Amino acid sequence: MSSLITELAEYQVKRKELISRDRSLRLDVLDQDNLSTLEIQADHLIRSIRATEAESVWSADYPSIPHPFPGMEFLTGRSIIVQTEIYKILCKMPKGALLHAHLDATVNASFLYDLGLQEPSMHVQVPKAINAQTLNAVLPKFKALPAELHNNEALSLTSPSYVPDSWLSLTQAREQFDSELGGPDGFDQWVLGCLTINPAEAYGTHNTVTKIWQKFVSTFRVADGLIQYTPIFTKYIREFIRSSIEDGILYVEPRVNFWIKTMVNADGVENVTHRELLMIFESILEETIVDLKARGREDEFVGAKIIYTTIRFLEPDELDWYFEDCIALKKEFPHLIAGFDLVGDENVLYPLSHYTEKLLNFRHMQKDAGVDIPFILHAGETLGDGSKADMNLYDAILLGTKRIGHGFSLVKHPELMNICKEKNIALEVCPISNEILRLTSSMPMHPLPILLNHGIPVALCSDDPSVFGNMGLSFDFFQVLVSSDVTGLIQLGAMAKDSIKHSMLESDQKAVALEKWHKQWQKFLEYVVSRA
Amino acid sequence: MSSLITELAEYQVKRKELISRDRSLRLDVLDQDNLSTLEIQADHLIRSIRATEAESVWSADYPSIPHPFPGMEFLTGRSIIVQTEIYKILCKMPKGALLHAHLDATVNASFLYDLGLQEPSMHVQVPKAINAQTLNAVLPKFKALPAELHNNEALSLTSPSYVPDSWLSLTQAREQFDSELGGPDGFDQWVLGCLTINPAEAYGTHNTVTKIWQKFVSTFRVADGLIQYTPIFTKYIREFIRSSIEDGILYVEPRVNFWIKTMVNADGVENVTHRELLMIFESILEETIVDLKARGREDEFVGAKIIYTTIRFLEPDELDWYFEDCIALKKEFPHLIAGFDLVGDENVLYPLSHYTEKLLNFRHMQKDAGVDIPFILHAGETLGDGSKADMNLYDAILLGTKRIGHGFSLVKHPELMNICKEKNIALEVCPISNEILRLTSSMPMHPLPILLNHGIPVALCSDDPSVFGNMGLSFDFFQVLVSSDVTGLIQLGAMAKDSIKHSMLESDQKAVALEKWHKQWQKFLEYVVSRA
Repeated sequence: MSSLITELAEYQVKRKELISRDRSLRLDVLDQDNLSTLEIQADHLIRSIRATEAESVWSADYPSIPHPFPGMEFLTGRSIIVQTEIYKILCKMPKGALLHAHLDATVNASFLYDLGLQEPSMHVQVPKAINAQTLNAVLPKFKALPAELHNNEALSLTSPSYVPDSWLSLTQAREQFDSELGGPDGFDQWVLGCLTINPAEAYGTHNTVTKIWQKFVSTFRVADGLIQYTPIFTKYIREFIRSSIEDGILYVEPRVNFWIKTMVNADGVENVTHRELLMIFESILEETIVDLKARGREDEFVGAKIIYTTIRFLEPDELDWYFEDCIALKKEFPHLIAGFDLVGDENVLYPLSHYTEKLLNFRHMQKDAGVDIPFILHAGETLGDGSKADMNLYDAILLGTKRIGHGFSLVKHPELMNICKEKNIALEVCPISNEILRLTSSMPMHPLPILLNHGIPVALCSDDPSVFGNMGLSFDFFQVLVSSDVTGLIQLGAMAKDSIKHSMLESDQKAVALEKWHKQWQKFLEYVVSRA
Repeated sequence: MSSLITELAEYQVKRKELISRDRSLRLDVLDQDNLSTLEIQADHLIRSIRATEAESVWSADYPSIPHPFPGMEFLTGRSIIVQTEIYKILCKMPKGALLHAHLDATVNASFLYDLGLQEPSMHVQVPKAINAQTLNAVLPKFKALPAELHNNEALSLTSPSYVPDSWLSLTQAREQFDSELGGPDGFDQWVLGCLTINPAEAYGTHNTVTKIWQKFVSTFRVADGLIQYTPIFTKYIREFIRSSIEDGILYVEPRVNFWIKTMVNADGVENVTHRELLMIFESILEETIVDLKARGREDEFVGAKIIYTTIRFLEPDELDWYFEDCIALKKEFPHLIAGFDLVGDENVLYPLSHYTEKLLNFRHMQKDAGVDIPFILHAGETLGDGSKADMNLYDAILLGTKRIGHGFSLVKHPELMNICKEKNIALEVCPISNEILRLTSSMPMHPLPILLNHGIPVALCSDDPSVFGNMGLSFDFFQVLVSSDVTGLIQLGAMAKDSIKHSMLESDQKAVALEKWHKQWQKFLEYVVSRA
């Protein structure tokens, strides 16, 4: 029996070593010799609250939520999440950089809609009259019109005699919305429903990747009519930056869709160029920096850059215009243009391989122009195994992408995983986006732990928070934290810190950002521990 | 421009090399130099039918199936699957060895129920009278009774005056079932519903791992009363072997639950020991071999071994009885006992670490007895990340498991993946089981492609086909094939062949089995190509 005791002791030693070897590539392990007592305390405290809430908040009965569990479907679980201590704490966590968000889906949908209601020039049309039958199938199109085209007198969108595609002022359309369809409140609900995805759609009627993408894409068509109007655009950018800072985000690197060549100006004329768009963007940034400094909050934000994007439905030759546009912008705003990407549903649009020649040539064009605009490409946002969307990963990496947008299917590719590790190519992982767009059924099924344990660099991102309701990064950090027993606050902190390293900030800017982040992190840890 | 053409050509070469390096650990790639023209032809043909059916069968509208797609939820998609050419072809494919199936869930539920109906000794009881309200909550308990306890005259299970837990003969219970609840047909439906999982349960009312496991476990409690009666058990084993051979399975290695210490004999007395159980098992095997030989079909089957299992709710000390029992059986039936395992829901029952000392001691007990009973342990059948079920993987491997039952969470463990590759520890992957038990929402989300591309040995298995409806291995091979663009017939064949290598057959038996498999494979390829 004494030999068994020895054997058991040896077994326990081997077990500890094995676990430790298995986890040795994780960020929280790599950092472990530099941890402060405060970090360790805070991590323990969060683990303990998480365990308590798993047994309390997540084990309670909710009349409208049949299967609550930590990391559950976000749209159904959101009302529970916001009640948790963990969520409230994470709202205060310094998140580092937001590296994957589509600008036209970053501001709360109600906020954007309210901006529209405040603009007398904002009009709306529908392709056919709305009634109880068509309500859920008809999408509004918004546009700011010049004064001479303003129309407060067209028939209500709900009048059987409404002339398809005729413009009516937004406020009038709202006022005159059929009372049987809820009147103005019904109108609000309808518009907001067209700007967002609801749980019945994500988990019921549109419960496949293909179907939910159709709804998803339609929300952009609706929102863009509101956003692409300079008076709104200006306020929109301001709100994006403000709400990001509010959530503890230090730096943002949004993807801006330049596919639309001109925006509508304050007079309702569609003539605002990309150059002017960047000037607005820059002015808001400057205003923000000045304002923060005035209020002694300069440690909370370091700025923003833009990833220039257009869409994968373009024919290769059509890219030339965008390449030239992008190069011209980069020359004039070298500090603002961070990179180039092609966006859209990878499962149905052209694969990167369709554009190889053009994209290689873009590098030559840049060289000739004396600029450097790195690729920061979407790839592998798919359930496919060897499908064109999955194959995009090979091309993104061969084209020298600096990071990978999503890379959801990367875990299927041992060699590409090695390359990402060796070359420090970070994946912009968007947990809630992936779940709502049906790549994963809930957070515990998400491949993130595979990436973290294999030492693949990862930055957590929100993707399209206006559509999904995951404003800021707190919700995404929350979902990651509660669906793992391994990941704790130390890992979240390490990812936040690393997101700054993976940003396209210049190295001196990075150093400044990291210093600011460390200050915020220290404050945050003190706050966490003070709750005990 | 000519430099761009050169650059593009170089890019294409690099791309090809990268893909090839990335896939170099796959079985179909490792085997590629030994492929016959016939194999290549057959693989192409299957890929072409798969592509056609993705656009036809899987893109059609079905009144009761809102979201059809290849690899969809099995219980909903089954009626589409059986219509496909791919499925019909795969039914004829030689599958090699079935290495993970729980014996008491291997025979079609209707077949088992019919066996019960044919036995006059078979009785049924319920804990309370059945009515429209209780129908879905009450489970039948079956038991064969000795003649003196036979009871055809107790009150109907649906009588309000039924005395709880009183036994009534099965046929009488069926005859007397309330006509308002469907009479005998309603009784049949109720019993079959208690033996199986239906789509409304898996994807609706029980749509979490925890909840569906409760339903899952209850099906065993119902089935065991029917199976644990030697006249039925004998026919049950015969049907298991017959239906496996019918599906192209050459060898089976079922897990037998020895937790129940005695079975009921033909006279209704509960005194049949594990030793007698094995004698029945062996006699059916011998009968099958003789019968196949007589019909010139001896190439279709080589035999069976049993993995001795008991359940993870036992206290460590309670294992001693089973260890001694297992060793005694191994001594008497060395050719039948293939290994030892502990089963049950890893997420809620004791982890392997709770039994470490006992399991280490079991090795000593074996040594003293001069036998070798390898561990073939369930581990990592979970969505957990660092949960006790996930941690079981460390213990299974440290305890020297020969294969891993499921290993669903292995992909989160880089070091354990390396060990499985180096030591050739195969994962018994059960795609349909994982999906119905809610570890994956549908097949495209399953981690199998990660395992295959990382070169982890895998054997496809059915787990509990009587509960899930995935009889044989054709359905599991189907789900794997249609949800990938990379995996083709060559990969399926290589997995089938490898399953024999990963079995616990002696090396000379393996050689015989492989030879038989190759003959069948050749015939199958000819059949596939002849369809073109």
